[in-house]
Amino acid sequence: MPSIDINCDMGESFGAWNMGADEAIMPHITSANIACGFHAGDPGVMLSTVKLALRHGVALGAHPGLPDLQGFGRREIAMSPAEVYALVAYQVGALQGIAATQGAKLHHVKTHGALYGMTGKNRAMADAVAQAIFDIDPALQVYVANRHMADATLALGLRAVHEIYADRSYQDDGTLTPRSQPHAMIEDPAQATAQVRQMVLQGTVRALSGKDVPIKADTLCVHGDQAGATVFAQQIGTALRAEDIAIAAT
Amino acid sequence: MPSIDINCDMGESFGAWNMGADEAIMPHITSANIACGFHAGDPGVMLSTVKLALRHGVALGAHPGLPDLQGFGRREIAMSPAEVYALVAYQVGALQGIAATQGAKLHHVKTHGALYGMTGKNRAMADAVAQAIFDIDPALQVYVANRHMADATLALGLRAVHEIYADRSYQDDGTLTPRSQPHAMIEDPAQATAQVRQMVLQGTVRALSGKDVPIKADTLCVHGDQAGATVFAQQIGTALRAEDIAIAAT
Amino acid sequence: MPSIDINCDMGESFGAWNMGADEAIMPHITSANIACGFHAGDPGVMLSTVKLALRHGVALGAHPGLPDLQGFGRREIAMSPAEVYALVAYQVGALQGIAATQGAKLHHVKTHGALYGMTGKNRAMADAVAQAIFDIDPALQVYVANRHMADATLALGLRAVHEIYADRSYQDDGTLTPRSQPHAMIEDPAQATAQVRQMVLQGTVRALSGKDVPIKADTLCVHGDQAGATVFAQQIGTALRAEDIAIAAT
Amino acid sequence: MPSIDINCDMGESFGAWNMGADEAIMPHITSANIACGFHAGDPGVMLSTVKLALRHGVALGAHPGLPDLQGFGRREIAMSPAEVYALVAYQVGALQGIAATQGAKLHHVKTHGALYGMTGKNRAMADAVAQAIFDIDPALQVYVANRHMADATLALGLRAVHEIYADRSYQDDGTLTPRSQPHAMIEDPAQATAQVRQMVLQGTVRALSGKDVPIKADTLCVHGDQAGATVFAQQIGTALRAEDIAIAAT
Repeated sequence: MPSIDINCDMGESFGAWNMGADEAIMPHITSANIACGFHAGDPGVMLSTVKLALRHGVALGAHPGLPDLQGFGRREIAMSPAEVYALVAYQVGALQGIAATQGAKLHHVKTHGALYGMTGKNRAMADAVAQAIFDIDPALQVYVANRHMADATLALGLRAVHEIYADRSYQDDGTLTPRSQPHAMIEDPAQATAQVRQMVLQGTVRALSGKDVPIKADTLCVHGDQAGATVFAQQIGTALRAEDIAIAAT
Repeated sequence: MPSIDINCDMGESFGAWNMGADEAIMPHITSANIACGFHAGDPGVMLSTVKLALRHGVALGAHPGLPDLQGFGRREIAMSPAEVYALVAYQVGALQGIAATQGAKLHHVKTHGALYGMTGKNRAMADAVAQAIFDIDPALQVYVANRHMADATLALGLRAVHEIYADRSYQDDGTLTPRSQPHAMIEDPAQATAQVRQMVLQGTVRALSGKDVPIKADTLCVHGDQAGATVFAQQIGTALRAEDIAIAAT
Repeated sequence: MPSIDINCDMGESFGAWNMGADEAIMPHITSANIACGFHAGDPGVMLSTVKLALRHGVALGAHPGLPDLQGFGRREIAMSPAEVYALVAYQVGALQGIAATQGAKLHHVKTHGALYGMTGKNRAMADAVAQAIFDIDPALQVYVANRHMADATLALGLRAVHEIYADRSYQDDGTLTPRSQPHAMIEDPAQATAQVRQMVLQGTVRALSGKDVPIKADTLCVHGDQAGATVFAQQIGTALRAEDIAIAAT
Repeated sequence: MPSIDINCDMGESFGAWNMGADEAIMPHITSANIACGFHAGDPGVMLSTVKLALRHGVALGAHPGLPDLQGFGRREIAMSPAEVYALVAYQVGALQGIAATQGAKLHHVKTHGALYGMTGKNRAMADAVAQAIFDIDPALQVYVANRHMADATLALGLRAVHEIYADRSYQDDGTLTPRSQPHAMIEDPAQATAQVRQMVLQGTVRALSGKDVPIKADTLCVHGDQAGATVFAQQIGTALRAEDIAIAAT
């Protein structure tokens, strides 16, 4: 039976500040990318998010980011690959520690925001991230959505989990249409579901040009910080299950 | 053959700021308490400190502290036991992640500064620290130097490693003479060595009153931030070995 | 014409995290206590909050807190009076700088959370806060709600602005009924308004015992982080104006 | 009588970590660039640095940096001009607050590290910095060492104080020889002094090509974090005074 994972960023509250609708979304996803305290999250938020995920049988992932709370990890910082390596090991380890208190292990790592963006621009950054993950635990899966990160992951023999989007259109080379261009977003839920179904069942996506291009679809990203995220996660899961596509972590 | 461990706080630099003489002291100790980024240390410093310790065969310990870089973790913060639990799990996990990249495991945990002080005043804090350590890995040893922390450690079946001081005098109840009182410090190296020898070989310490009182001596604390720490660590190790006392981690 | 100020904490968002309903409440208050980046707020939030206050003719106040973003400045930190002095000068200066870019000056200072609590327990802390304010600008008014802070303020010749609450009951000594006791909160809007009216017009408050006790009422505190804060601020302002009590900053 | 200012970065310690030799260097300089808590410094360090500068009659300058303690403000962060504007206003204001407690005013602003570098690459960043300074106090002088910052400063009618180096060689266009090229550094103290003398007395610098090119020389930068900084500051001051060049802030 064909299947796909549904992942969402979780645990992005910090201290007295709340973000996202973790309790509402968690029942509708199969893997959680949990912020690790550098761009969002704190030890208490991480612990309660791990507990919430475990209650719903959701796979635990570390979501390391740049050390920039004020910028929510979205502002690129000129760091060296060695700095990135240490920062990823630290954050993944921290969440491992929190998860271990609940008798749980991590399933995957997905980098956040500008850190993710830096891996897309610079292969050395992608290598640093992948090496840190490999050196901590080669059984950790790596969520990838750019070529450098995919290549760096495979080069080390780590499992790459390819991420796709339901609400974004694609170009002929299999990359997302930039938001600055027309038709970048897919607003129609039926069209979004159809796109995911084609990706999972046929391994292709219909690009804006009308051409079907090959794509790997292992996990679908839900944007937890957008209004309607809960409804979207619930609806697309229901629609895909109705097509005999299982929703399950990799 | 009787033995004692020599431990020292390590990795207390941060970013561009250096502290301590880690390279000089490391050859003379057998266990390192490595700062975990909350009161001192950063991911890069932690990684280089782990590598340095491993080169010298020094046992790795996590040295978690309060989230207060400016105060170096020395200012008490009114946190709940639940907050302390999460904070310890986070920091121990972070150092585990860094150590894992080098194929190494942690040997022990020793709390820092005001966090340590809070465990001495409040059993619930000591329980929170011990429970976090136990829940992460019950094989981790716990360095203890106050009654609450010793009791909390033993209550969970964790191994308590009792810490003693060469340069401090003791009272009849086996606790340190407060620094505010006369003769609190032992300045004479020969007397310091003699005190440790008696502790290790006879399980007693001669209190200021002249009475010999029972004491557990598993690890000797060297203050890395004091001038002369390197010389002290080297000399006391040499003196103890000359008495057929082994210097080794527990 | 008798008058009272209505103050509210403002600018407590941080980076990507929002808190409070500043835009909705600002039209209904006459002075704003603006977070200064230590427990909440950041330079960008401070600037937009200053602009918002100025658009509504609201007096600008600095709301300095302890350096504890994660704890929102609500966890006491064992700092010395000298540390508190420097921390207040820094934060008040920072908001002065932001305000100066808009051609505006600060009207007052009100300490936040645990910093405020520390001044209530320890006269030396209150003196440190008052001295910092005096040394920056003796024209700054000081919002006070505990005896030490009032005394420290007056001892330096600074103007003390006495803060009262509409939704809390009082005891015979003029202090608030602790929340742990019955009838601490006043739920009835009419009763709340009546309490403020008596305070402003007669300089007394009817204590829980039924006795009228003297009280100074210069500014009324609205809790911006509570649901209904906007409606409360609007209603009490309307009700007081209907009684010929002006709503105006001191 | 011709004159030049000697400036040095000061107050770069943080909490328990020391940096620089402020007490030793302060007697030999005429203006201090004081870190404002974002890349280095904390309220207590700022206060003691202001006091030290005032004791030696040294002009006070704010030295704002990027919000990156771990990176010491040396790692570029992708911020918008609006973020930079607010960040400069905040930090300059914070130091104004600290200085005000000592009855003192700020003389100048010099940006630090990567923030300074960002103004050199991007005129919009330079404009944001200059506008923040102008909006706080148009009497503040601005230390400039790149074209964008000089242009942005002059465009607003602020006073630009041109910074020169004794220990670096220059190119035909009046910019520094990059460190990656030969002869970038001037090691000979006599040659360093001669270069400054020519700059001050003739308004030119002898470029590596041998050509004399025009240069503005208002302030000489001493690198406080380099070994020998104190001796260098003292010697060049003495040598210049011997040539009847006054050492004085602008």
